[in-house]
Amino acid sequence: MIRLSAQDASFLTLETRDAPMHIGFLLTFKLPPRAPANYMQKLHARLERMAVDAEPFNQRLVQPEGFKRLVQELEPDENIDLQYHLRHEALPWPGGERELGLAISRLHSTRLERTRPLWECTLIEGLQPDRFALYLKIHHALADGVGLMQHITQTLAESPRGLSLAPWTAPVASTPPPKPTTSADEEWRRFFETLAAERNKPKSEKPAGSTVPRGPRCILNGDSTGRRRFATTSVDLRRVKAVAKAAEATVNDVVLALASGALRGYLQEFDRVPKDPLLASVPVALPRVPGTTIGSSVAAVHGSLATDQKDPRKRLLAIRDGMRAAKEEFKRLPTSVNRFINSVGMYAMTLLPRKQSTDPDKATFTNLTISNVPGPKEALYLHGAELEGMYPVSVLAGDHRLNITVLGYREALFFGLIACPDTLPSVQRIAVRLPQALDELEAALGLAPKKAVAKKVVAKKVVAKKAAAKKAAAKKAAAKKAVAKKVVAKRAVRPRGAVVGVEAPAPVVPATTEVVAMPEAGTA
Amino acid sequence: MIRLSAQDASFLTLETRDAPMHIGFLLTFKLPPRAPANYMQKLHARLERMAVDAEPFNQRLVQPEGFKRLVQELEPDENIDLQYHLRHEALPWPGGERELGLAISRLHSTRLERTRPLWECTLIEGLQPDRFALYLKIHHALADGVGLMQHITQTLAESPRGLSLAPWTAPVASTPPPKPTTSADEEWRRFFETLAAERNKPKSEKPAGSTVPRGPRCILNGDSTGRRRFATTSVDLRRVKAVAKAAEATVNDVVLALASGALRGYLQEFDRVPKDPLLASVPVALPRVPGTTIGSSVAAVHGSLATDQKDPRKRLLAIRDGMRAAKEEFKRLPTSVNRFINSVGMYAMTLLPRKQSTDPDKATFTNLTISNVPGPKEALYLHGAELEGMYPVSVLAGDHRLNITVLGYREALFFGLIACPDTLPSVQRIAVRLPQALDELEAALGLAPKKAVAKKVVAKKVVAKKAAAKKAAAKKAAAKKAVAKKVVAKRAVRPRGAVVGVEAPAPVVPATTEVVAMPEAGTA
Repeated sequence: MIRLSAQDASFLTLETRDAPMHIGFLLTFKLPPRAPANYMQKLHARLERMAVDAEPFNQRLVQPEGFKRLVQELEPDENIDLQYHLRHEALPWPGGERELGLAISRLHSTRLERTRPLWECTLIEGLQPDRFALYLKIHHALADGVGLMQHITQTLAESPRGLSLAPWTAPVASTPPPKPTTSADEEWRRFFETLAAERNKPKSEKPAGSTVPRGPRCILNGDSTGRRRFATTSVDLRRVKAVAKAAEATVNDVVLALASGALRGYLQEFDRVPKDPLLASVPVALPRVPGTTIGSSVAAVHGSLATDQKDPRKRLLAIRDGMRAAKEEFKRLPTSVNRFINSVGMYAMTLLPRKQSTDPDKATFTNLTISNVPGPKEALYLHGAELEGMYPVSVLAGDHRLNITVLGYREALFFGLIACPDTLPSVQRIAVRLPQALDELEAALGLAPKKAVAKKVVAKKVVAKKAAAKKAAAKKAAAKKAVAKKVVAKRAVRPRGAVVGVEAPAPVVPATTEVVAMPEAGTA
Repeated sequence: MIRLSAQDASFLTLETRDAPMHIGFLLTFKLPPRAPANYMQKLHARLERMAVDAEPFNQRLVQPEGFKRLVQELEPDENIDLQYHLRHEALPWPGGERELGLAISRLHSTRLERTRPLWECTLIEGLQPDRFALYLKIHHALADGVGLMQHITQTLAESPRGLSLAPWTAPVASTPPPKPTTSADEEWRRFFETLAAERNKPKSEKPAGSTVPRGPRCILNGDSTGRRRFATTSVDLRRVKAVAKAAEATVNDVVLALASGALRGYLQEFDRVPKDPLLASVPVALPRVPGTTIGSSVAAVHGSLATDQKDPRKRLLAIRDGMRAAKEEFKRLPTSVNRFINSVGMYAMTLLPRKQSTDPDKATFTNLTISNVPGPKEALYLHGAELEGMYPVSVLAGDHRLNITVLGYREALFFGLIACPDTLPSVQRIAVRLPQALDELEAALGLAPKKAVAKKVVAKKVVAKKAAAKKAAAKKAAAKKAVAKKVVAKRAVRPRGAVVGVEAPAPVVPATTEVVAMPEAGTA
């Protein structure tokens, strides 16, 4: 049995119908050239033959309705029905980004079934032109964005002819279960008790001023329902890097500045821009406890979005300086346990469900979460199909109605925006404004997009990198094959139809050698 | 505000994740000849323009988590988001009955959102060959099968060029809300209290023998999860009528005999046929309280399926005699309130969640529910598309793991089977056996299917009927148009894009004048 950390357990105990606590990824793939009509059916059958071997996909909750509020344990599920977890759908005509966005919105609006392993995977066909999608959903108690991303990328192939596995099939030997970090959990429980006591205090006992920075009140915060609307966009990572260089800022600073610009325009359209700047919660990945693969390992810093600044350049510089200060403060925290407790507490606090009240002391902590998940630099493949885009589908924290999470894959940044459409209208309008904010930043900094030149440089780099990567890929593929053999052997003894073997994907030659994927900045 | 009857309120209070209490219908349509590529998109847009005016579609619960266990009230929802209730999906390739069955299984496995009007409608495209489907789902507290059917048939058109509305758009002026039947509710509450007291009694206080007939224990009863698997089949109603005539039985008796034959075969394959005959709960529609349109009006009789009889003919005769006796007993019940209480209590009892125990006194009441919903005799159309099949998607009662509900439309009986796949495997195998059971019955009674002859007779009848129906249809269409105008006028003042008008469906000439729909007896 695996005992979940107090933080992960809280994602289960805090979950309500209006505050579901699962995260996901949307992957879009190009169909291989000359893919047969039954390509998707075969891919589905192939994935259905993959054993559920990898943690946490093979684990279920020991106490679905646990009476101990902060303790949750996992145990291996010996009777997993993969037909339940792996689904297969199609988009209605015309099968564009809008139909895909609506499908993901629907899939992300339902909670996971607590009597089964806490994940679902949906294959979605009919995405035009000549594409398909895969949506993977898992409870935040079992994985964070970084962890789920690793599961996905480790099981995809590095070439069209490479062997790809399913995320729930272990590509490497499973790591030993983590030791319960009892002392940390005890500290953390005390933190929660203090927080609860603080909330229940009559108002007069509270200190007059708070040192915790708070975001201004606006349409981005308040009650929400469990319904979700998903929107996407993407921008050229090289353009973002050029902006960062010109402003002596980080890529993450520029991402925050894009969000800032998009939100200013959106608030002007639907509400009003608050006098004080919006405050973002920016998750920071923490080093994992060695030997653990399950659960979240994340803290958060608070960064101003400088939405009070009209000038895009000044906004970026203010964001940059604010984030530098926040990170300095974060580093000054006592290390080891103390730092862990503080930072985890900060992140968990943002996830606590809160109602917006008229009492300014009870105003929101932060206005939204803006997260950045590192992704693979090289092209990946599933059953011969090239991974085109990879969009995070995240969770709404506390009284947030919006989350913007970004993933870098190859030479693009993929934005996944998740919102509650019952309380925050037309999140697509924010997605549309993100690339526009990049145009504005470039103009303000005197930069012109140099697409053609940049492409050539990258293409050269790619050729060199490809040769170097080839050897490493061959090695990894051999390891995967060994696992696949084990998997098949394991499945073969199960009483489930004819399992002949893991079918090798048909040899596929990409139609073009252009490696730099640059999807249109569209919205779903 | 509308107060739900005690029976309807109990469907809300008794509902759990493992025992969802919604019902539905699956309608399959033939695409009009030469339908354009965007036909489904236009149909979806057309339905989305229809105002939610009809009770109970425009009502929401006043107390979603009501503290009074048996009282639930409805109020008009002034802020309905039709984009939430009306969805649009597609089937993955090859888009056959299997893919449709899996899609309906998935849609029927989720509970309705209690903060919104308790219904969902899903348009499903990609059904081959050249068909599409519509799945309508509503809480059992708001409608029974007969009521939902009326909503559907009233809003469909009677000719390809006729004007069809959405089920949630009132085709007639809404009826006044029902008066609370307080005395009946009081009686019924007392009945529940007695039942609860009876259950809590220590075993020694209970009478040694029970007069209530009980079904034998088998795989059909016990715990279930909320997951559902849906399967369908259909048979020629004229063949069923011929069998009924030869055995001096009713069509309903033959339906029970088909279920009996199919279940015998299924139990032989997956469990064993119990020594004692299976006992079915057979719902009986009760006259509606005048002026009411919301909720259920249904009782139930218990009928033996005579599964202890090997001979199909003897089985049918035993079922016939048993049902005659049960109906006599039902009629002998004191009339008016007393009869209402008794019969409703009988039906509600079957819906109470029960766990199977080793105590024979706590054995199941009935093994499954077999229901028969009368349907329209003439062809119906939606936006120019001909309604091909109409399958009920029902609810699992008490410790049942299977429900078989039948609907007669034109010259066919459409079977909808709903089961819990986590506890009752391969319900499709029962669906496959239903038409086989009809073959066996015909052989046992010395009847040969006379398809060719029967078709000719019916075709002649249809021509005569069509002429007579034409006048009536024209009258009804005029009334519908008046409503549609009202609807559009109402929508036009709402702040929602450009509403130009209810688009008339393109003139459509059916490709064939063959009116007798006889779908292949396939399984989904």
